[in-house]
Amino acid sequence: MSIPSSDADDSVSAGELSARYDKFVVDLLGSIAYGKLSAFERLSSDARYSPTLRDRAVVGKMAVAEFGHFEIVCARLEVMGMDPELAMLPFQRIVEAFHERTRPADWHESLMKAYVVDAITEDFYAAICAHLDADTSEVVAQVRTSEQQRALLEERLQTMLGEDPRLSSRLALWGRRLVGEALAQTQRIGAQHSFLVGLSPDGTQEEAAAEISAILTSLTRSHSRRMSQLGLTA
Amino acid sequence: MSIPSSDADDSVSAGELSARYDKFVVDLLGSIAYGKLSAFERLSSDARYSPTLRDRAVVGKMAVAEFGHFEIVCARLEVMGMDPELAMLPFQRIVEAFHERTRPADWHESLMKAYVVDAITEDFYAAICAHLDADTSEVVAQVRTSEQQRALLEERLQTMLGEDPRLSSRLALWGRRLVGEALAQTQRIGAQHSFLVGLSPDGTQEEAAAEISAILTSLTRSHSRRMSQLGLTA
Repeated sequence: MSIPSSDADDSVSAGELSARYDKFVVDLLGSIAYGKLSAFERLSSDARYSPTLRDRAVVGKMAVAEFGHFEIVCARLEVMGMDPELAMLPFQRIVEAFHERTRPADWHESLMKAYVVDAITEDFYAAICAHLDADTSEVVAQVRTSEQQRALLEERLQTMLGEDPRLSSRLALWGRRLVGEALAQTQRIGAQHSFLVGLSPDGTQEEAAAEISAILTSLTRSHSRRMSQLGLTA
Repeated sequence: MSIPSSDADDSVSAGELSARYDKFVVDLLGSIAYGKLSAFERLSSDARYSPTLRDRAVVGKMAVAEFGHFEIVCARLEVMGMDPELAMLPFQRIVEAFHERTRPADWHESLMKAYVVDAITEDFYAAICAHLDADTSEVVAQVRTSEQQRALLEERLQTMLGEDPRLSSRLALWGRRLVGEALAQTQRIGAQHSFLVGLSPDGTQEEAAAEISAILTSLTRSHSRRMSQLGLTA
């Protein structure tokens, strides 16, 4: 999709802007829905490798929460008159490719992946919420990971790192790889779909790119802060 | 564990009978809990191979229901003052071994496995409910698969078989393998743990064996009826 240059801005009708925004919302919700469905499947498969049955139950519970979120987003797409399956399809390949590139080697990496990717995703949602209408914004807020769950993951990771200090360098490396892949993924989706346009429907391409760049910088900064809190070098 | 012969029956105190029954209930709930957790993980992993996103969501929903059941059984064990993890541990290896022996080759086999194993398990629960106290019986009833879910699976299987008649012989074979493994599994758990004793705490070993045999016969009969309904040779 080509974006009109600023010279042509006057010729963009209100109807066109609104259509662009609608497309953006459907893409956003479609990508969130597929991300949630995929997270559900990956987490619950990973759960099997948990060292204890208690850990399996904890990871299972996280997976179930992701499925609940998936259902909320699908319900919203249906209210909008959209087929959730059609909305999700464009994101299937890109999300699966991400998981293939970031396949955890063991339980520790699996927990770390859940923590890192989830936190970056949450930050991304928070950053774009300002650009959303009230209804969409509410749905996005509803599918955010609970504080409780994030605290649980953080605590588990801290215990793990405390028990086996040799894990630190491996997980620091893994964290860097995850954040690199996650940011590349965000950029890819932004470039291929209508996110850029949606973020700034009446702005120029430069303005949209600046906005995305500011978001990515802020995601990186928050990630580094979280890694420091775990005692890892980001 | 050795079971007293009928000659020794008089020497079995009421306290001993009650202890045997308690052990039976903990084993029963432990095996159900682990079975549910494992079903949750297997189903949600299998979901990924569903042909459409709609099917993935359907299988995902079944998996989530299994996890809810797992939580109900764990809560009951906790109310009884038992550690769910300890109650589940004795069944971990045997349940996983069952899944390894019955690993579906594709989506069709996966759906068939969900249907067959679930139905046999349900029948088994129903058969032993008569031997349970009211509280345990209520928990077992709560974790039964909903009629709605079973109907959905049945409908999906029927459509599948209708669309591709060559599937019939493969799935009939698969169904026979599944039922064989499931019955062997039931017998194994019955022999290694306290199910036999629990089913007939004040009876002889012969009475308990007759009871288990009657249950297995009835499970086989119901399985054959279900296969016929799908147009498959049991």
